[in-house]
Order: sequence, then C-alpha cells, then structure tokens
Amino acid sequence: MSFNLLKGKRGIIFGALNSNSIAWKVAEKAVEEGAVITLSNTPVAVRMGEVSELGKKLNAEIIPADATNCEDLQHVFERSVEVLGGKIDFVLHSIGMSPNVRKKRLYDDLDYDMLNKTLDISAVSFHKMLQMAKKIDAINEYGSVVALSYVAAQRTLFGYNDMADAKALLESIARSFGYIYGREHHVRINTISQSPTLTTAGSGVKGMESLMDFANRMSPLGNANAEECANYCIVMFSDLTRKVTMQNLYHDGGFSSMGMSLRAMDQYEKSFDQYRNEDGTIQYG
Amino acid sequence: MSFNLLKGKRGIIFGALNSNSIAWKVAEKAVEEGAVITLSNTPVAVRMGEVSELGKKLNAEIIPADATNCEDLQHVFERSVEVLGGKIDFVLHSIGMSPNVRKKRLYDDLDYDMLNKTLDISAVSFHKMLQMAKKIDAINEYGSVVALSYVAAQRTLFGYNDMADAKALLESIARSFGYIYGREHHVRINTISQSPTLTTAGSGVKGMESLMDFANRMSPLGNANAEECANYCIVMFSDLTRKVTMQNLYHDGGFSSMGMSLRAMDQYEKSFDQYRNEDGTIQYG
Amino acid sequence: MSFNLLKGKRGIIFGALNSNSIAWKVAEKAVEEGAVITLSNTPVAVRMGEVSELGKKLNAEIIPADATNCEDLQHVFERSVEVLGGKIDFVLHSIGMSPNVRKKRLYDDLDYDMLNKTLDISAVSFHKMLQMAKKIDAINEYGSVVALSYVAAQRTLFGYNDMADAKALLESIARSFGYIYGREHHVRINTISQSPTLTTAGSGVKGMESLMDFANRMSPLGNANAEECANYCIVMFSDLTRKVTMQNLYHDGGFSSMGMSLRAMDQYEKSFDQYRNEDGTIQYG
Amino acid sequence: MSFNLLKGKRGIIFGALNSNSIAWKVAEKAVEEGAVITLSNTPVAVRMGEVSELGKKLNAEIIPADATNCEDLQHVFERSVEVLGGKIDFVLHSIGMSPNVRKKRLYDDLDYDMLNKTLDISAVSFHKMLQMAKKIDAINEYGSVVALSYVAAQRTLFGYNDMADAKALLESIARSFGYIYGREHHVRINTISQSPTLTTAGSGVKGMESLMDFANRMSPLGNANAEECANYCIVMFSDLTRKVTMQNLYHDGGFSSMGMSLRAMDQYEKSFDQYRNEDGTIQYG
Repeated sequence: MSFNLLKGKRGIIFGALNSNSIAWKVAEKAVEEGAVITLSNTPVAVRMGEVSELGKKLNAEIIPADATNCEDLQHVFERSVEVLGGKIDFVLHSIGMSPNVRKKRLYDDLDYDMLNKTLDISAVSFHKMLQMAKKIDAINEYGSVVALSYVAAQRTLFGYNDMADAKALLESIARSFGYIYGREHHVRINTISQSPTLTTAGSGVKGMESLMDFANRMSPLGNANAEECANYCIVMFSDLTRKVTMQNLYHDGGFSSMGMSLRAMDQYEKSFDQYRNEDGTIQYG
Repeated sequence: MSFNLLKGKRGIIFGALNSNSIAWKVAEKAVEEGAVITLSNTPVAVRMGEVSELGKKLNAEIIPADATNCEDLQHVFERSVEVLGGKIDFVLHSIGMSPNVRKKRLYDDLDYDMLNKTLDISAVSFHKMLQMAKKIDAINEYGSVVALSYVAAQRTLFGYNDMADAKALLESIARSFGYIYGREHHVRINTISQSPTLTTAGSGVKGMESLMDFANRMSPLGNANAEECANYCIVMFSDLTRKVTMQNLYHDGGFSSMGMSLRAMDQYEKSFDQYRNEDGTIQYG
Repeated sequence: MSFNLLKGKRGIIFGALNSNSIAWKVAEKAVEEGAVITLSNTPVAVRMGEVSELGKKLNAEIIPADATNCEDLQHVFERSVEVLGGKIDFVLHSIGMSPNVRKKRLYDDLDYDMLNKTLDISAVSFHKMLQMAKKIDAINEYGSVVALSYVAAQRTLFGYNDMADAKALLESIARSFGYIYGREHHVRINTISQSPTLTTAGSGVKGMESLMDFANRMSPLGNANAEECANYCIVMFSDLTRKVTMQNLYHDGGFSSMGMSLRAMDQYEKSFDQYRNEDGTIQYG
Repeated sequence: MSFNLLKGKRGIIFGALNSNSIAWKVAEKAVEEGAVITLSNTPVAVRMGEVSELGKKLNAEIIPADATNCEDLQHVFERSVEVLGGKIDFVLHSIGMSPNVRKKRLYDDLDYDMLNKTLDISAVSFHKMLQMAKKIDAINEYGSVVALSYVAAQRTLFGYNDMADAKALLESIARSFGYIYGREHHVRINTISQSPTLTTAGSGVKGMESLMDFANRMSPLGNANAEECANYCIVMFSDLTRKVTMQNLYHDGGFSSMGMSLRAMDQYEKSFDQYRNEDGTIQYG
C-alpha cells in the first residue's frame, strides 16, 4: 500500500546497514510514499556494500559520514540539499553502538573512553546533526526529525548496559533541541521507542532471543517489526502529525504499558513445573 | 490534502456537536480519507440540529445514544455495522461533561452524585462502548479506537476540577481494555492528549483564555487546533500505526515536555513591571 | 528501632483488618514512633474482632465507618479530634475492594453497578475523606495524608481488573486534592505504590503467587513487605518530608524501573527447557 | 529537631561548597542525626576555604578529589573507610557544572568538548563514583546513595541548556547502576529532583529569579529550600526507606504534578493588564 504521504518531500536516512535495518525499511517506504532521499552511513559501512544496492534501487545518493564528526554531518546536509534540490523535510537518526557491549565490559566495569564513545555515537551525534542542520538552515519549516530509541531509556534491562544511558540522553536531546528548533522553525523532533528488533545492532545484546520472546508474550499485539516501525516513521514525517514534538512515542505492541500479561505469566509458570508441590504451589529453595 | 488513508474503512464518531468540535473535524477528515461513517451523539444534541447537517454533508447516518447506556451503545454498533455494510474499523470517543463544573461546584465541595455522572459520562462510557462492541464482536481485527484526553490527567490545572480525575480514569481504561482487546482481536486503543481547544466543552473551563495563551507560549509549535487533532486521529485510525496501543499520545505542540519557555517567561515577567526595584529585581510584598 | 519521628502527632489509620494488613503495621509503627491514633474500618470488619485487639494493644479507639459514607467519615474525623485532643497530623487510606474481582467478572464483562462500587470504595472514598476533613478543618497545617496504591495504575496486569482503574483514579485524586489542600493548609497528599503484598486484599488477585515470584526476581532488592511499607509511611508522615506532595512514590524494591532482570529471565528461560533445539535455541510451535 | 536516624552510620558528602549548598545542609543534618562523615570537593573548592570551616565544625575530614578522576574517587572511598572506621552507609552526589552555560554558549551552538565536560562532571562522575566504590566494596549492605537532580531532566526549561541532558543521563545512571548494586549488595540508588534553589550552582541559570517566582506560585507548598531538601536526603539515607531504589523522587512542593495553579495564572494575567480590551478580553498583536 502507498498513500503518497511524502510526495514532494526530501529526506535523509542515517543508519541503513542491511535489509534487517529499520533505517533500510524506512528508506524504502519513504521512496514508496513519494519522497526523494539520500542515505548516510559510516565509510566502513558504505564500503561493505549492501547500502550501495539500496541506493541504486531507490535512486538515492549515498553520502558517507562519521556521525560524530560535525564537518561530515554538515557535508551530508549540504550535499543532500544540493542533490535533492531544496531544503530537507525529514531526517531519520538510526545510529547506536556501544564499544563496552562489544567488548563485553559489564556495566560495573565500564571503560570510560568507551562510554564516551557510546554516548558520542548513539546520542551526541543527534545533537551534532541538529546543530549542524540548524546552523546552515538545512531543514524546511515544519520539517520532522525522528531518532530511534528503546524502552531501556526508562527501565533497566540486564545486558543492555550503557546503551540504556545513551538512549536516555538521546531522548533528552530530542526534547531540548525540539524546543529550540520548534520555536524558531517549527521543526518537530521526536523519538520512537521500538520493540526489541532483530537487527545487526540488536543482535549484540545478551539473551536477545529470550527477551524478544518475553516482550512478545507481554505485548497484546506482539512485538512490532522493522517494517511496521518504518510505517510509523513515515507517519511522523508526514504533514498529518505537525503538532507532535518533543515526544517519545512507544511503538511496541503495548509492551510499555504492561505490567504482566496472562501469556507471559503462563510461560513463566512453566519454569516451575518440576518444582511444584502436590498441591500445586511453588516449591522454593 | 487527502491520501486515501482510510479507504474502505468503516467508522463511528461519537461526540460531534458543532463545527468547533474536534469530533466534527474528525468526521469530515475520515470521509475525505475514504471512510464511511456513522455519527452518534445524545438525543438532545441530535435534536439541536447541527449534527444533522454534518450527517447530510457526509452521507452519514446519525444514531442518537446516551453514552452511559449500554443498550444504546450496543444499538449504535449494531446499526453501524448494518448501514456501513460490515464490521467497524475505527471509533472516536470524544465525550466529556462534568455537572460539578457546570454547577460551579469547587473541587473541595463536590456533589458526589454529580462526580458519579462526570465519571460515568466522561470515562466509564468508554468502557461500556468497548465492552458492548466486543460482546457483539463489532470491531474488525486490527481496528483502532481513540479517545480524546487532556494533560490534566497527569498534571493538576486549577478549575479543571473533577474532569482531571475523569481523564485519568479514561486513560486507565484505554490501557486496561487495550490489553484485552489487543490480545484477542488485535484491536488497538489509545488516547490522544490534545492542547486546550476552544470547543463547546472547553469553553466551560475557568480562565480558559489565559490558559490557552500560556499553553500557546509554552509550546514551541503553539497550541494544536481541532483540525490538526483530526489529522492525528486519522493517522491513528490508519494501517500505518498498527502496533501502537495502550498509549497516551500528546498532541500539544510540545507543551507536555516543557518546563518553561522563554516566550512564556517573557510574558510572565511583564506582570512584575510595576513592581520592580530600581536595580530590576522583583519587589515582593 | 524507634526514632520518635511522630512524637506528639495525632493520626487516623483506615483499613487495618488483621496482622497481615499494611495498615495494621502502620498503626503499630506510628504508635512506636510516638503518635496517638485512632483506627477506622467498616462495621463488619470491626465486628470480626481482630481490630479490637489491635486497638487495645495500641490504646487506640476504633471508630467504625463506611468509607463511602460522608457522614461516617465526618464522624471519624470529629471523634478522632476529640479523643486525640486536637487536630489530625496524618491519615492513612488503605482501602480497596472490587466486587467484580470477588464475583470473578472479567474485565470485558464488568457489571457496572459493581464497577461503580469498586471506584466508590477504592478511590472516591479518598476524595470524600479529604473533603470532609477539609470542611470541618480537621487536619493540621503541614499534615500528611497517604493512600496505598499499586503499579497497576500505570501498567496493566492481567487479573487485576477494574482495581487498576480504581488505583489510577485514586492517584489522580491525590494530585487534584493535593493541589487544593496544599495551597490552603500546606497539607501534603501522596500515594505509595507498594510491591504486591500478601494481604487479605491481595490474596484475591489471580495468579498472585507467580506474580509475586516474578516481581521478586525482577526487583533488585526483592519485593517490599508490609513492615517495610509501614516504615515508608512513617517517613511520609514525619516532618522530614514536608515539601513532598502530589507524588506517587514507588516502594517496590526497584520493580517499577525494571524492564528485565537477569534473575527473572533466568527463571523464564527454564520454561523452555523441554522445548530446546540441540543448538540451544527455543523450539517454537 | 534530631531523631538519631543515622546513628552509627558513615557517609560521604560530595559537593558542599558554601552555606548555600544543599550538600552543606546535608552534611550538617547527617551529623546532627548521628552520622560520622567525610566531605569531598574539588581541590580548587577546598582551597577557597569555606569547606574547611564546615569540616572543623562537623569534625569531618575533607578529601579533595576531582570527581571525574577514578583514582581520586577511589581514594575518597578508601580514605573515608579508614578515617570513619568501616564501610560507608550513605553517599551524596551533589555535583554539576556546565562550561557551556558558563561561557554562555546557546544550546544550538554548543561546544562539544564542553558538552563532554558537562556530561562527565555532572553525570558520568556518578557512575565513576559507584563503579569505584563497588570495585573496592566500600559500601555496606543496604547502603544508600542519592544524587541531586532537577525536573529539567523530564521537561525543557529555556536557559538550562545542556545541564538538562546531563540530569537525564544522571537519572538513567541511577537506574542502571541501581539494578546492579541492588541485586548484588542491596545498595539503593535514587535521585532527588529538587525545586530550583538559590545555590552557587543555581545562580548561573538564566532568568533564575523569575523562574523561581513562577515555580513558587505553581507549587501548592511553595518551592522547597535547601534545608528541607537535606531532610529528605536524611530520610533516604535512613533504614526506613530500604526498599526504595532506582527512583527519581520529586522534592518540589508539588511543582512536578502541576499544570497550572490559580496563583501563577493570576500573576500571569497581570502581564496583560495594559493590553486589555474594554470587555476584559486580551488584546493581542
């Protein structure tokens, strides 16, 4: 289905790596919905090649950039305005990485240079992007910017480590800059807090499979997948959501508003099957 | 602009009173976006006549109902399924009224029969609507239900009185029933927390004009109006937001995420102009 | 341990039923900390007798009252001021009951007269209490009022049913009345959102044992028990928390800020033991 | 008043600068309540001298430390354990500074080295503190750690700049580490979100006087002052709050739960006095 929701709009998608990426789906949907776009990712990711195929398919120029580098980011905006033929209407920030997670440093044994990198790549990059865009006035009045987040920003999940703190910082930046950019150019800035998703980024997280099973059973609608997330991004880029800003929007099948579902508890109870007393109560210890 | 977002969908709009009503705009937009709808309001409101015009214009049958009466609600769903030719895809609940507010009872001098009515009309009616719809299986798989709320559910505003409690109850019902209806029929249930809006309902609230001015200056994008709210409702009814449920979605130009804006504080400071010391500090007392 | 935190203070404890009740522990602690108190419960509960023992032990008069009856509530305050020798400094509201839960009505098959009762007993009673107290000016300047709540007010738990909505309403009333009573008499009003606790009230909830096990494993400090909750109440009644008002305070070992703990996930994973593929992945379906 | 709430306990207070500091008041109260403590601040702050007086008065050793330096922090804990004669029971983190604010860089023109410093000093220092303490096992079972925060972590206030993001990060670290330290040593970690307070730190914020006036009129109990905040810290350090963890606790006279008070709106309306039409409505434009 296509509705021409983004007809005539110009966008930049940061973070499409391969066909599992949410950003990849957003790029596809945005073009389907009538937008012209550019793609940006790190030079390394670009060299790995899959993004090039996407670029060809969508007729989208790929602009390599280190998202922690202000000059690179400025270049992405300048070049995008140039090749797309005007100011930008929407931006997706789908960037996150924790060297501490990669190196299996536990949260009570963080390397602080790595923590710095986690915050810089996963959160401060969003500020840099916005600051650079605003300085060169690259985003149209009533433009829309979305960054992808996760419920770990509000609630601790074992193994998510310093990425939780990065997401909390990211969401705060969305609010802080949303105020500034909104009052001056009506640009709206939101984060979408997505279900756990099996992307390349997600696959590094400890116990991901069980966590996804639990989240799925907890959520009345089940986990949201990457394609559904892309639909929600499109909606947030469209002119139909012009007064929504500084929000963290849960896209998670209801997970964030659940305390305990019957399905999840039924499964949980099976874990005690071999530890039941004859009267059915749990046998502890 | 129209995107055919609701093409082929059937909806029921509760609460359109006159052209200032948010529900009125939602009805218009829904039809523009390709839906067929019915309208429902109280018998008294229907007799007053403006809704009839809307019905004619949109080719929508008007089904009078007392939203606190289960049989009436059941009839609305049954009749709607009949005239629209199939199960319902979306529902708007835009119903709220406080006899205590009308009778100028203060919050520390509530009449409890009236409080009962406030809760019944403004919140429990939502549960009745959902329970009746589910019992007769009137809503399609992946249907979408939206109720209109206000930030008073989270933060106290003088003069909003027992409507604040009603909105908190309403939002809780959206979560509680969202779990049930989601797990069994993938129906999603959300509330949209709208900027203060000059509707017939809103106009009863004390100091409404100043409050709207303050909210407007606080919100980086300004207050959202009824038409913009209607757009957001359409988006929530569409297939692009299928995994969003049990959420309270702020549609308020950023108000809910603001602590203090420069614009609002500039205005606030003017109030002290005649009470300044020579050095510019505020002269108290 | 005793600190004389409530020395010279007068309090009313609503809802002590038996030695499992949180209110029972609060009554004991309050007296230990130097307060004089009265106890109130329904006439039926009072006749059952255990409260009388508590009253004797604590030298506290028991004043029967139906908490949904304004005259009864007024009498409790008047009589308490009389027997305690002055205005009241603190009040505990530990009252909740759902006829729908008792009668095993599901949330999508509620009886609305029963829902009315649930809301009246569990939430509106709090408003009545405060309104009556304020009308006869029964609470001292800087007094403190606490009502017990549960995380179901924010997040849906299967089986908690219409009590979730009642708790949401209760917390809203705490905010709404907290504003009024605070600005006029500096009385502070808060709710404490307690871990699931095996009280007589709690024991009616479906799957309570497993839920408590899950909550316990999720919470880094484990579930909070009734005695610990009583300590927290004392603190909120004391003069050390004079500027805390209109808050919902989680007393839950950290549960409310957890998304998933390693302990809970370890247990959850055991449920799949018999459904594992040889490579350790979960075998679905 | 003193209750011996911290009798026999050992604590470390970070961030007491002068008698306006909240940390200063906490140090005084902690000693009044029976604790023995050490004080820590930057070498520069220590040399300025006022802290030394406090140290003498409270018989507390002053241990200079750069809170961004892990070795320094480790030394503070080691030395404190030594001079206080055992493991630590409570810690206060009252540290925050933004070079961007000091240099009057606007939020859309941040210097990123300075942002790094803001985050490092105001938020990451809290992680370093906790990580170092845990590595050398310096905190007792059931110890309590509190960091001071501000509502800007949730809601944007003009002029608060990158400190808002730092506070959001700080609160996230409290949750993340609260999980780890809680499950392993029952140490609880919370943040207290305090009213705007005229401390040396607070006085740098733009339009502080008007903001405090507004917050004061919005809060039913008025702004909380430094001494009252100290009382709340003591309560959180005591054994009466052992199951409270991973929370952000508002200590703000109710501000955080207010949307608009009558007092604040009355003042706000005065700002329009000279812009009224004859019928009393606001004259715009």
